[in-house]
Parts: sequence; structure tokens; C-alpha cells
Amino acid sequence: MASSARERSWWGWGWADQAIGDDECAQLGAGLPGLRERPRPVPRTRDLELRPPRVTPPASLAGLCSDDPADRAAHTHGQAYRDVVRNLRLDLRHPPDQVVRPRDEEEVVDVLDWAAGASVAVIPYGGGSSVVGGVEYRGDEHPAAVSLDLTALDRVLEVDEVSGAARIQAGASGPALEDQLRERGLTLRHFPQSFEFSTLGGWLATRAGGHFATVETHIDDLAESIRAVTPSGVTESLRLPGSGAGPSPDRLLLGSEGTLGVITEAWMRVRPRPDQRASASVRFADMDGGLRATRAIAQSGLRPSNCRLLDPGEAAYSGAGDGSHAVLVLAFEASGVPVADRLDHALELTREHGGEWDPPRDGSGGGDDAAGAWRDAFLRMPYMRDAVARMGGIAETFETATTWDRVGDLYTRVRERMTAAIEDICGAPGILNCRLTHVYPDGAAPYFTVIAAPPADQELRCWDELKAAAGEILSEGRATITHHHAVGRDHRPWYDRQRPEPFAAALRAVKAEWDPAGILNPGVLIDPRAH
Amino acid sequence: MASSARERSWWGWGWADQAIGDDECAQLGAGLPGLRERPRPVPRTRDLELRPPRVTPPASLAGLCSDDPADRAAHTHGQAYRDVVRNLRLDLRHPPDQVVRPRDEEEVVDVLDWAAGASVAVIPYGGGSSVVGGVEYRGDEHPAAVSLDLTALDRVLEVDEVSGAARIQAGASGPALEDQLRERGLTLRHFPQSFEFSTLGGWLATRAGGHFATVETHIDDLAESIRAVTPSGVTESLRLPGSGAGPSPDRLLLGSEGTLGVITEAWMRVRPRPDQRASASVRFADMDGGLRATRAIAQSGLRPSNCRLLDPGEAAYSGAGDGSHAVLVLAFEASGVPVADRLDHALELTREHGGEWDPPRDGSGGGDDAAGAWRDAFLRMPYMRDAVARMGGIAETFETATTWDRVGDLYTRVRERMTAAIEDICGAPGILNCRLTHVYPDGAAPYFTVIAAPPADQELRCWDELKAAAGEILSEGRATITHHHAVGRDHRPWYDRQRPEPFAAALRAVKAEWDPAGILNPGVLIDPRAH
Repeated sequence: MASSARERSWWGWGWADQAIGDDECAQLGAGLPGLRERPRPVPRTRDLELRPPRVTPPASLAGLCSDDPADRAAHTHGQAYRDVVRNLRLDLRHPPDQVVRPRDEEEVVDVLDWAAGASVAVIPYGGGSSVVGGVEYRGDEHPAAVSLDLTALDRVLEVDEVSGAARIQAGASGPALEDQLRERGLTLRHFPQSFEFSTLGGWLATRAGGHFATVETHIDDLAESIRAVTPSGVTESLRLPGSGAGPSPDRLLLGSEGTLGVITEAWMRVRPRPDQRASASVRFADMDGGLRATRAIAQSGLRPSNCRLLDPGEAAYSGAGDGSHAVLVLAFEASGVPVADRLDHALELTREHGGEWDPPRDGSGGGDDAAGAWRDAFLRMPYMRDAVARMGGIAETFETATTWDRVGDLYTRVRERMTAAIEDICGAPGILNCRLTHVYPDGAAPYFTVIAAPPADQELRCWDELKAAAGEILSEGRATITHHHAVGRDHRPWYDRQRPEPFAAALRAVKAEWDPAGILNPGVLIDPRAH
Repeated sequence: MASSARERSWWGWGWADQAIGDDECAQLGAGLPGLRERPRPVPRTRDLELRPPRVTPPASLAGLCSDDPADRAAHTHGQAYRDVVRNLRLDLRHPPDQVVRPRDEEEVVDVLDWAAGASVAVIPYGGGSSVVGGVEYRGDEHPAAVSLDLTALDRVLEVDEVSGAARIQAGASGPALEDQLRERGLTLRHFPQSFEFSTLGGWLATRAGGHFATVETHIDDLAESIRAVTPSGVTESLRLPGSGAGPSPDRLLLGSEGTLGVITEAWMRVRPRPDQRASASVRFADMDGGLRATRAIAQSGLRPSNCRLLDPGEAAYSGAGDGSHAVLVLAFEASGVPVADRLDHALELTREHGGEWDPPRDGSGGGDDAAGAWRDAFLRMPYMRDAVARMGGIAETFETATTWDRVGDLYTRVRERMTAAIEDICGAPGILNCRLTHVYPDGAAPYFTVIAAPPADQELRCWDELKAAAGEILSEGRATITHHHAVGRDHRPWYDRQRPEPFAAALRAVKAEWDPAGILNPGVLIDPRAH
């Protein structure tokens, strides 16, 4: 059973007691014509008719296993919009046969040994916050499938304060690891939207995008060494700040999405909690000016910690603007050295692209209320998404990255074509907003939000068609199908076209070596070697 | 034939006309007791007795192939000290049977097709500046071996000025690509010591260390997309500023050292030439204070472009000090935004660790003479190394990286044990100096120089014993056997102990997939799958 006394929602995001109530759902739904008048009821696990478990674990593992229907239901889907909709409908076709909770690495080894022998599929599971079908095994090549819930491995095992590194178990959630690091005045500072529930292992396996808008944008850059259990043995890299000794072993596991091994722990780069902050919001008459200014900052070497460009719709939606201008949210942070001058330089760069700003907020002296408010709203968004889903509406996001020479065109093309697609597919206009979440000297990562009102009971079909339309636009624009959400099963059609074919063969060769029985997360990322 | 009219040295570093003359060699040698009175003569290719070529290329490739002895001799060894000594002795046991110079990618494909069919080993060759036996095939499992000289692929093919990226052929040397980028006001800013001769493809294949002391320390971080020819087909990644779509395809080729494919071109991140610079040298009474200050800067987020800590001996040797103190050379650079304030913050950080400095040099207004002088001396060092070799002395380097909790101990241990080893192995005291070349928030890369006077004609044996002693010390200290020189053949004993065993199996699996005939650079990095 879950170790926390507070109850997680089995069907939607987060804590059950934080879900938006019926009346508020209805109020929210009234904002978009064409939705239901009252929300669908919250689904109850006692109404589920799950397929009976198809496998019984051996006695030696029985103590780690649960076939409780509520447990299995909660581990059936991830946290994509389409997962929530299916949960609301009690449409759980592929539940895991068992939920297995190892308490240490040796038990992970034991589970893989048993599963490999029995050809049972093993789905590594951290926070269950995949939005790409990453934890849902939909195949039928295996006689059974188990969900390997790693959240009992939640400790910070060791801290090296001199180097700024910590050895952390893969099942530790954001709050769990930050609480343990805070005792030393340290922080990992990796804050994906799923922060409260997602785990270090999940972040590493999916190359999660984090707090920093520049430089260390992905969890990849914070990993010093990774340890994982493969069905063929344990692999662990040397702790090193940098190396040139062959291809990086860690970079093979980063993004492997549970197909090559089960990450059990990692040495992560941590840092002192920042005590210097400076931030400002810059307005632009249109997205063009905002993009040019953002690019100038991304190419300046100033390296802001936050550099989030909101288009006018997104600015209005998130309360950062009134919808008449684009807004660039800029922030710098550090520990021990001032940052106000870097903000000043960045603001000067925006001026020549039409940027206008109010006097900067200098957070070095204390609180940073605006950032805190944005963070609260940011963490609240998945609950809002669930409310929209209960009202029969669509609320979902997709994200990408491309080089600067294409960012402006891509933004325009996605806006135009997805706005048309929403109307075409749903039969009514919707909302399509965009923000840049991460920026690079050579490009940026646009993140799009879709809100739409499909015909009654057509939301899954409509979203799947919208998602396919988005995938085609991104692929045509040579933009990645995912900047930090991962490939999973849902992005396969486009990933399969985007990744170099020889690289897929290479991954299959490694999988055949490490996971010869093909039990690890089948269907994600690649298909095992066909023969 | 080489495209330049100027003659490259076949036996030692660089341009033949830049080699140090006999009298200067003798002068230099007089500084270290126990060396020869006059230098060994410069070896002449006409005195070589090379093994006759063991393979004749097919008529379709004959125009690309050379079996000229001078050509084969120049492609036999890399540029390690032990390579130069063997050249001086005309000891060339493993010359390539042919030197093959493709003029485009299609010809690379043709060469690999022929070689795979004939089981001929193919050794990718850029600048020939490997210091780890990376271009010398010493095995006998193949009936013949050819050196695949890629320097005819030397063009910048495309520049995307908006994104700051350029598509560059892999055979372009540092000056060749910088000259082409300079026309657009751009620069790659990757300046390894081998800059004048080494090539983009070699940098990528060996994860070369470059100009920047922080953040983008390796060429890895400048690569946007890589294209390579494998014996099984061409692989090319999508141009992306960042992605989370599966493991990075590029990171598999980065560090593959010619064992998996032949890199033919890459989209590289380039940048405007810096117009803002600020630099200073900080003195410390001892290495301890210098290490603490350097760590503080590395962990500050200030991200200097140069942050090179010289121990007292290295400071004296390079003219940056008088041998009584450690010296930290600090520099910041940018295009379009000031950097003087970042230098000021960094200097303040050094103060609490006993740092003392003269008024900083602000290079924004024009020349940066000290940096230029250091760079000239830096580029001159390999010629000095050759002079020492001609005098019968040892002059060689080794490098590593480790986390900050170990850096100080490692420095002390290497100093003590290698100083003793020099005296023990060579029978006379020598010199052991150190500088940190790259720094990270979680560690640093110490770079050691050994200068010693071995007994007459014993320099190879002595150096090999010294190198083995160094490898043991690094391995015991859990420091990487190479931070940016690569593994090659010379680092195999220690690399084989350091890399995770499952990762070696993964590399072998990929090699079996991409290079089933096992023709690419055999013996480097891994041994092909045994079966």
C-alpha cells in the first residue's frame, strides 16, 4: 500500500482531497460553450470490472505483490488527458496483473529474475505521471504484466557536500528528496509540473525537463552517475564530473524509458539553495518581438534560470497579461553572488526588440511572491485539467523543440493549423496557447495548450485526432515529437520517423543484450528485435 | 597528398619548418641533467624499411589510395610521446597498407563496402593527433589495414546564422573551419592544443576538451546533430537544440573513437566572436587555497570561460609565476553583454581563500596580450616535447577528472607517488607539474606534465612504466583514465576496469549491429564480441 496517509486520486491527478468539486467544475465548464452542465461523476473503484490477475507471484515475492483492484486500477494508466478520460469511463482494458513494490535493489533483481523466467512483462512505475502511455502495457505477447512500483526506494542515501552531489534512490519523489536535501541546505532544483509525485528514476528514464530554462534544462545534466538493474545484471557508472572515456554510459540510460533497465539510484548534482534572485516580466506588442528578444537573451550567455515567453493567449490564461501582448518572464538566481546585473543586461537586450517592463523585482532580500503564485497556479493546472475532463471538455498539452530559424514559423503554423483542426474536429472553436518553457542558444522549446469542447462523448476520438494533427505538423517542421515528455507508446508513430533508423537498430541490439527475454516495458520507444 | 603546400612533419608535431633546431634542442636538454649532449637526428623517410603493402585496392578506389612510404609512415602513429620516440628510431611496425583519401561521403561508403567485403581494417584518421594509440592498428586479425584520411572533407557546407549553427564536414581542421566561419563573424571556439591540425570528426569521435573551462567543456556540448557512415548504412540525427525523445543518438557516436562509424559531418553550435573580455591572474600561497577558491568559482554559477589553476611548478614552467605560489588564470568573455562584473564577483570569491591579484585586465577595448602569449606558448609545447624527445628525455602529459571531495587528495597522491616513480624508474629526479584545465560544479580535471631524464635508450620502457603507475593511481582514486584525450588502445587496461561491464556488452552489441565484419578501428575502446 502507498506509504503516505494522504490519499492519492486513483483516476486523476494528485491528492484526492485537492480535486476540484462538482460545483466548481460546472463553473469552470461554463466558460467554454458546448460542455456538459454538470460534471461526470468521480469514478469509484468498486464499480470497476477489472480483468482477473493472470499470474500468481512465487511465494518468495508474494509479500511484495498486490492484486487489490484499487491498487491495480491506480497503476493501469498514466496521467495523460486520455488516461483520465478512460478512468472516468471505467475503461481499464490493460490493468497490470500485480503491483509489485520492492523495498531494496536486491528485490528488484529478484522480481526481474522471476519475470524473465516467466516471460512476464515488467512496467517500471515511479509517480505514474507519464503523459505518453509510458506505464500502460497494451500488448498481448506476454502472458501477464506487472507494475513495478519503486516508490519504496525513496531515500537520500549519501550526501557529498564538498562536491555538491547526493546519492538518491530512484523512487524518491520531488518533495521526498528535497525534504532530505533541505536538511543540508541543498537542493536538486528539478521542478517539473509533476514534481509532487514523479520520481527521480522517472525523471532520468524520460529525460525530464526541469526548473532551469537554460543550460541544465534536462535532468540529464544533473546526473553524475546512474545505477540500474538490467535482467542481465547491475550496471553502475563511475561518479565523475566529466569524462571523455568512450561514449557516456549514463546517456544510454537517460531516455531509455524503462526498456533497458530499472534505474535504482543515482548520484545527482545538487547545489546550495539560492539566496540571490532577480526577476522581471517584459511585455511585447506581439510574439515576433518576444521571440527576437528571447533569442537574443538565449544567445547572450547570460543564462537566466527562467526565460519563459508566453504568447498573448497564454499570458491571459495564466494571469500574466490581459491578452493584448506577449510576456517574457525572466529570472536569475544564484547562491552567494549577486544576479541583479545579469537581469539588467538581459532587460537591455529586450529593449531593442520593443520590450517594456516595470521596475524589476529583486528577490534577494526575501520572498518572491509572483514566482510563488505562478508556481502554485502551475501545480494546480493538472487538477483544472481533470475538472475540464469531467465536464466533457479537452484540456491537454503538447511540446516540442526546434532551432531558432524554425521557431517563429512553427509557432505560426501550429497556431493556424491547430486552431483550424480544433474547429474542424470538435465542431466548435477552442483555445490554442503557447509558451516557450526552455531556451537554448540554437533554439527553443514551445509548449502548447489545447482547450476544446468536443461533441458529447467524442472527446477521446477528438483528442486522438488533434494529437495526430499536432504530430504531423511537428514532424513536417522537423521539430522533435517531444522535448521532455518522453516517447512512451503514444509518440511512437512520429518518433519512429524521426530517430535515425540505425539508432533504433542499436537500441534493439542493446535491448537484446540486456533484456533478452524482452520483459521490460514492451512497446515503449522501440519494438524488440524481430526474429 | 596533403592539400597544404607547407610540409607537415612526418615524425613529430606540426609543421616541419617549425621544429626546434639542433642547437636549441641541445640548449633545452642542458636544463635537465642526464640527457644527451646533442639531439638524435631527425629521421628521414628514405631510411625507413616499411612492411610492403599487403593489399591492393580495387581499380574503382585506386585513385583515392596511396602506398607511398612517406604517406604510410606519416599515418602509422599518432602524436603521443611514445609515437615520436618510435618514429625517431624508425620503429614503425604497423604501418597502414594504404592511405585512402575519400573526397566525399559517397566515397567513404565505397571504401567501407570494399573493406567490409575484404575484411580489411579501416582506421579513421583526421589530424593524426591521437595521444592514446587511437590511429595505430596493432592487431593481426585482419589481412590488411588502411588509414582513412578524411582531411579532404574540409568544408563548412551551410551556416544558419539565426540559430547559430553550421554544418561542417568532419575532416575540417581547426583553422580551416574557423577561417570559413570568420567570414560570417562566427566561431566554434573549440581550441584544443591540437587545434591547428586536429579535425572536427576527431574531436567528436574522442569527446575532445576545448576552450571553455566551464559549461561547454567538451565538444559534446557543441554538437547539434551528427551524421556518420557505418558499414550498415548512414545515420543522421535531427537538428535539435534539445530533446527528450529516447536516448540521444549523438551521445552514442560521441566518444565512439571510430569503432562504430565514420563521422562525415555535423551541425555544430557556433557563436558570434566575443567582443567583451575580462581576465585576471590570482596568486595563492599554496595549492590548497587555490583549490578551494577554484571550487567556489566553479560552484558559483559565474561560469568563467577560463579557470585554469596552475600549481607552483606549472606556474613557473609556463611563465605565469616564480614557483613560489599557485596561480589561477581567470577569464570571462561574451558577445554584446559586459563581463567585468562577473570577473569582479569571481575575484571576491577568491579573496576568502587567500587569493591576491593585480588590477584585472579588461580586454573589451582591444588586445589581450597575456592570453595571446599563453596561447602561443601552449601551441608551441608539442614542438618542445619533440625537442626533449630528440634529447633522449621524457616529456609527456596525462589527464583525469574527479569529484571535488577527491581532487585535493588525488593531486597530493599523484605528486608524491609520481615524483617517487620518476626517480625510481628513471634513476634520477624529474619534474611533475599540474594544472586544472576544466572545472565543474562537482569536480575538476587535473592535467599533469611529466619531464624526466631516463637512462640512455630506455625512454620508452620508462615512460610505459610511468604511464602504468599513473593509471594505477588514477584508478585507485576512482578518477577517470581520461577526461578528454580518449581511450584509444593505450588506456584500455584502465578503461576496461572503469567502465560498467554491461555497458561494454552494450557497445559490443551495437558494434555487431553496425559493423558486423568488425573492420572499424579494431582494438580501440572495446574488443568486438567474442564468438
